[in-house]
Amino acid sequence: MEFYVTDGEDYLDEIIAFDKLVSYNFLKFPIPFDEYSERYEKLIRELLSRGEHKFFVALGKNGKFLGHVWLCMTLDTVDYVKIAYIYDIEVKQKGEGIGSALLKRAEEFAKEKGAKKVVLRVDLSNPALEWYKRKGYTERAVIVEKEI
Amino acid sequence: MEFYVTDGEDYLDEIIAFDKLVSYNFLKFPIPFDEYSERYEKLIRELLSRGEHKFFVALGKNGKFLGHVWLCMTLDTVDYVKIAYIYDIEVKQKGEGIGSALLKRAEEFAKEKGAKKVVLRVDLSNPALEWYKRKGYTERAVIVEKEI
Repeated sequence: MEFYVTDGEDYLDEIIAFDKLVSYNFLKFPIPFDEYSERYEKLIRELLSRGEHKFFVALGKNGKFLGHVWLCMTLDTVDYVKIAYIYDIEVKQKGEGIGSALLKRAEEFAKEKGAKKVVLRVDLSNPALEWYKRKGYTERAVIVEKEI
Repeated sequence: MEFYVTDGEDYLDEIIAFDKLVSYNFLKFPIPFDEYSERYEKLIRELLSRGEHKFFVALGKNGKFLGHVWLCMTLDTVDYVKIAYIYDIEVKQKGEGIGSALLKRAEEFAKEKGAKKVVLRVDLSNPALEWYKRKGYTERAVIVEKEI
């Protein structure tokens, strides 16, 4: 499949609509879609209102939206160095190299901006963990939680 | 050792000074203490300037500062429910039940505030992971990173 990666700021509506649908499948506390949608929009607006964000999209040769990566430049709370945190990377079709191209572009951007590393969270139930390891990512910490 | 747990807002200077020293040992990118100190202060100020934070401290019967827990009420970016994120929990002396008492107080506070869960990050190099598991915490996700 032919595609190219470019700045994603003009595709925010499509990115958010796509991510909202995908993320609904990962909810641990099932809630109705309407309620989820409201929370999702609130959270995204809150996240976007602060910090230095960057979006890239993959587009087909007809301009069709094929996937995105959402980065935030921040300070690591353990190492105190500038990092790029990947909030999200999603593709409409796997196995076409689209995710790899988006990740590569995100890493290049992070490096240009002076980040020392790229960081992201992967849920244990998410098979993408092995994919990130093949891309050179190593496990640094675990997120633990307790229902109260 | 006798101690009690109370609101920590009046002990912020001690909490920050203590955490700064402890956290210096966990740096992956070694930097001089002065430079670290500057970054640390900047990050802490940035974190405190936004969100809903809460501190508890453990005090000895003479009022001596023995440890603290630092919570932030936020929205989980995966589950879209209200959670309490523990930024930090530290004690001056282990094995006295101080950490357990601080964690318990943090969980009670989180529940009072309507949080569905308590979440925190534990570095893989940190032996505290087993301690959290004994306290009922389960592994939910991994933080992966790549130096660039």
